[in-house]
Amino acid sequence: MRFKKKDFPLTRVREHLETGPIVLVTSRHERRSNIMTMGWHTMLQFTPALFGCYIWEGNRSFRAIRESRECVINVPTIELLEQVVAIGNSHAEDGDKFAATGLTAGKSQRVKAPLINECYASFECRLFDDRMVKKYSFFIWEIVNAHVAQVEEPRTLHYRGQGTFMRAGPEIDCKKRFKPENL
Amino acid sequence: MRFKKKDFPLTRVREHLETGPIVLVTSRHERRSNIMTMGWHTMLQFTPALFGCYIWEGNRSFRAIRESRECVINVPTIELLEQVVAIGNSHAEDGDKFAATGLTAGKSQRVKAPLINECYASFECRLFDDRMVKKYSFFIWEIVNAHVAQVEEPRTLHYRGQGTFMRAGPEIDCKKRFKPENL
Repeated sequence: MRFKKKDFPLTRVREHLETGPIVLVTSRHERRSNIMTMGWHTMLQFTPALFGCYIWEGNRSFRAIRESRECVINVPTIELLEQVVAIGNSHAEDGDKFAATGLTAGKSQRVKAPLINECYASFECRLFDDRMVKKYSFFIWEIVNAHVAQVEEPRTLHYRGQGTFMRAGPEIDCKKRFKPENL
Repeated sequence: MRFKKKDFPLTRVREHLETGPIVLVTSRHERRSNIMTMGWHTMLQFTPALFGCYIWEGNRSFRAIRESRECVINVPTIELLEQVVAIGNSHAEDGDKFAATGLTAGKSQRVKAPLINECYASFECRLFDDRMVKKYSFFIWEIVNAHVAQVEEPRTLHYRGQGTFMRAGPEIDCKKRFKPENL
């Protein structure tokens, strides 16, 4: 299933990232595209939209991401469980991860790294600060473009370790009990 | 409901934090305890266990946490929804948040900040690196002690923005499809 994504306001990307889903990070470097799974990330700022994440330097994507200074953060849902597990348990040496998983690459607007069409949300990122990379493998990204398909209560995957995921459950609307400035 | 928590291995704290739950951060400074809600955080390293989080400098807890160089990260579940919303929508000036919410303070072992007895998991933290605080309000903590009650599939809360939470859904065990080194 490919999602029809639309431009999404950068000020609202937290709605899709703050819950802590496993994401698929796509990169493009030296005419090769790659995909990795990633679960250690956090929002850092609303405007500009800053997002931080840990990328293990042993991962093949590390060099491609570091040198190209770009990536796309794609958010998969339960329908992509097989692909998420396969990508997390294979290496770039095993071959093209798009071909191996059946995922398809879409065109980004502001970076060379591709989107994943089968993910309901994709966020184009440019490196904003790499001063924490050497010591902590922690990258700070500016999200420069956001694509999101309208999905009610997206059933994202959240990694618990030990090969186990938590699947996003139902939403609870507490809006009426929030002060407007805290929404 | 107060949980009976037990010592938990520091190498496994990711199992309770990586899914991205809203957490309650407790602090103690100048003989006052405080509680704040927090959703912008990430694991950064297994050993020592490092954890990074954004704390808005406008929050009353900011100074207490910065100056005491300690805090406790407590993980609430759906049973504490009312308290989570109340804490996120009140100020320290409104009075003692323990008294206001009915939450009770437990004794930590290695820091002065209290645990919250009604949270199923609590992680004692000491400031590890504050070099990102000035620019990004981002603190890097070493988790020095972990207390976790045995709860099957904890129904944690994950903030989506706009006053809406996602409640943790069921677990999916994919262990058999993982390579042992990737678990």
